[in-house]
Amino acid sequence: MTFQRLSIIGVGLLGGSIGLAVKSKSSHCSIMGYGHRPATLLRARERGAIDQIETNAAQAARDADLVILCTPVGVFPHILAQIAPILKEGAIITDVGSTKRSVVRWAAESLPKSVHFIGSHPMAGSEKQGIEAARSDLFEKALCITTPNSATNSDALGRLESFWQELGMRTTRLSADDHDRMLAEVSHLPHMVAAALVAMQSDQALPLAGKGFLDATRIAGGDGALWRDILLDNVDNLRGVLGRLRSQLDRLEQMLNPQQSEELRQWLDHAANKRRSRSESSNSGE
Amino acid sequence: MTFQRLSIIGVGLLGGSIGLAVKSKSSHCSIMGYGHRPATLLRARERGAIDQIETNAAQAARDADLVILCTPVGVFPHILAQIAPILKEGAIITDVGSTKRSVVRWAAESLPKSVHFIGSHPMAGSEKQGIEAARSDLFEKALCITTPNSATNSDALGRLESFWQELGMRTTRLSADDHDRMLAEVSHLPHMVAAALVAMQSDQALPLAGKGFLDATRIAGGDGALWRDILLDNVDNLRGVLGRLRSQLDRLEQMLNPQQSEELRQWLDHAANKRRSRSESSNSGE
Repeated sequence: MTFQRLSIIGVGLLGGSIGLAVKSKSSHCSIMGYGHRPATLLRARERGAIDQIETNAAQAARDADLVILCTPVGVFPHILAQIAPILKEGAIITDVGSTKRSVVRWAAESLPKSVHFIGSHPMAGSEKQGIEAARSDLFEKALCITTPNSATNSDALGRLESFWQELGMRTTRLSADDHDRMLAEVSHLPHMVAAALVAMQSDQALPLAGKGFLDATRIAGGDGALWRDILLDNVDNLRGVLGRLRSQLDRLEQMLNPQQSEELRQWLDHAANKRRSRSESSNSGE
Repeated sequence: MTFQRLSIIGVGLLGGSIGLAVKSKSSHCSIMGYGHRPATLLRARERGAIDQIETNAAQAARDADLVILCTPVGVFPHILAQIAPILKEGAIITDVGSTKRSVVRWAAESLPKSVHFIGSHPMAGSEKQGIEAARSDLFEKALCITTPNSATNSDALGRLESFWQELGMRTTRLSADDHDRMLAEVSHLPHMVAAALVAMQSDQALPLAGKGFLDATRIAGGDGALWRDILLDNVDNLRGVLGRLRSQLDRLEQMLNPQQSEELRQWLDHAANKRRSRSESSNSGE
């Protein structure tokens, strides 16, 4: 394991799963877990996701080689301010948030030059929340996006990528701008749309829902506060992709007449082929 | 098994799966399979889904107690006209189409009073097509909607429902109007939206798609011609539900600002709770 002393800030689904995954790969890594609810920390330790518990974020990060922020994104500025003064020289700080521009900016504003912040987005998750849903194999075969910039130390980046790879992930690099723009398309807008599809269902229709509907809307079961933070952190990109989705729906509605039957079939087959071009084999999630 | 002589008109995913399911439950039912491609019929017989093969629809339906139309909906008028003159008195005719108003009307126009037509929609399926994808357990725990009307013979309805139940399904009754209206919400619109979500993806974003996106858009992988027929047969209802979806998306976009953060969270949590209220346990599909 690349790091010996790990600090997990927030031990819910993602933080807990990181702990379990690390422990399943190596017995030589000491994991400090931070949370504001002692009961959650105790449960995380009981499940073997962390070795030590700490309700003070600065204390939790003090001796760490790698600090991973796993709380909701909205809490990051507060956490960064708390840990900034005590971080070990050369420590690597990362996060698992679903948006990246804000956290990269907050980190640059808050953290000393003596440490390395690099944003991460391990694209694994579930509509389930909390330490009880954590799994040691959550990250197997998933994609982890890192968001280095021109100031990023390449050695630190390499070590961080090795860490995620050790948990079973493939890694790729994007700028924080590109990350947020593309994730708006492939994750944040789909969440909004799934939620809207659920919200519009009548009480008569919903009981008829079959596997197709349940698959298509599973992501809408995710925690409202968590998704609120994600959406509000990516509003500019979301407005753009919503416009593109509306154009596609307008085009589809225009083709809903027998005179355009052949165009409609071609459009649907094009979408079907594009969808089928994506392998089903990966385990990656949000 | 309620019926001794079964005729399956079209031996693709649904027709083939009906044959396999019947054969897995009973050895006393003789199944005639109709198709226009001999190779498909031979393969269906090889897989054990049918006993006899026939490329003439009238011949295939001649002696049947139960005839099930499993071709694409667009072919139904042609098939009904072919089989009408030769059906046995008291035979029950049904179908597995995803829309019901048209087929009920076509049947009333084409079939003699001496037989019983009752529409069915077994809500099981897959984005996969054809006899190779057929499975004997496709219908287990799925919902089958029948669409009787005031002229329907109640004994025939009871026998048809028993048949679907013998294949492992729950059954419920709706008018053809109600069926098409509710399926627009819970199946046809979700298909359009999933296809639009795929169509709008940029080449850069699509490779980042995780499990959430793949689940949400799996239905978009379905056959274009099949879905074209479904959508064009339900245009009036689709326009209505598209309007309702647009209203929800407009409302969501309005809430994408920090001043409405709490309303946005409540809206997302409401959708999440509504989605979670639906059990995941059923095997039902399209």
